[in-house]
Amino acid sequence: MRILGIDPGIATVGFGVVDTEPGRLRYVSCGVITTPAHTALSARLDQIYTDLQELFDTFRPEQISIEELFFSKNITTGISVAHGRGVILLAAYQNQIPVYEYTPMQVKQSVVGYGLAEKRQVIDMVRRILQMPAAPKPDDAADAVALAICHARSATSLLTKLGGEQPCSTI
Amino acid sequence: MRILGIDPGIATVGFGVVDTEPGRLRYVSCGVITTPAHTALSARLDQIYTDLQELFDTFRPEQISIEELFFSKNITTGISVAHGRGVILLAAYQNQIPVYEYTPMQVKQSVVGYGLAEKRQVIDMVRRILQMPAAPKPDDAADAVALAICHARSATSLLTKLGGEQPCSTI
Repeated sequence: MRILGIDPGIATVGFGVVDTEPGRLRYVSCGVITTPAHTALSARLDQIYTDLQELFDTFRPEQISIEELFFSKNITTGISVAHGRGVILLAAYQNQIPVYEYTPMQVKQSVVGYGLAEKRQVIDMVRRILQMPAAPKPDDAADAVALAICHARSATSLLTKLGGEQPCSTI
Repeated sequence: MRILGIDPGIATVGFGVVDTEPGRLRYVSCGVITTPAHTALSARLDQIYTDLQELFDTFRPEQISIEELFFSKNITTGISVAHGRGVILLAAYQNQIPVYEYTPMQVKQSVVGYGLAEKRQVIDMVRRILQMPAAPKPDDAADAVALAICHARSATSLLTKLGGEQPCSTI
């Protein structure tokens, strides 16, 4: 199964593509969608929507794993990220790709085994799990790959437990 | 000029259509887009996107006036409203309709003349300004009509002052 991890944003949207194979995960690709600063929010949303469509066409992901939003730190940033996340969910729905969401703590727990792990630890574990020669860059892309790994592990373990039922609820 | 006011949301999106005519504003239509509860967020966003496209095709608005978001009260609700707002801005951009945003205080100031006016006062003034036999219903639709009036007044006064320049920045 091919999973697309997405780290939502407005200036930068990270993406990471991972294939689940029997007994292992295979790294496929990662990168970022960037939108120019000092541009209308609506134009940036349109660019995210268009670039995402291109990603779907290129990689044909079967499931999407996206970060759940928390607004504990910066509410203003959170508002614009939620705008972008809405457009990402729309594009996924229109392409009939189910979307699963995970908190940053769930991702850290899954990838590092510790929900309060540091960012560097997560990135290093991503590199090791996928047997990559170097850590994925930039950080937003690495975060997206971590989201894909988290969903792959969650889906695999739950599918085993539930005997093939839907691993978790879509959003 | 035809203005579409939009009160963003996920369960309910209010809309109100108003035409500016020399010396007066003319009421055209108002209503709400509703999405079913207990449905995936992505499906609700798609319904908003699709229904909005139908609104654009039916009324062919030239400008859109939308409420600016503040998350002072309920952050969880605010997150989902921002998701919906992102989809609305995307649809507007794809239809090349410029979008202007106003805070609830700006709308109250423009419609009632007092930025801390009660909701009932705003709805009553909307009815009077547009010479409607009854107040627009439901409240989300009335709020959207108020947003359209607010933009009509802002655009008209600024256009007069600036001699036809763009009234305010788009988002």
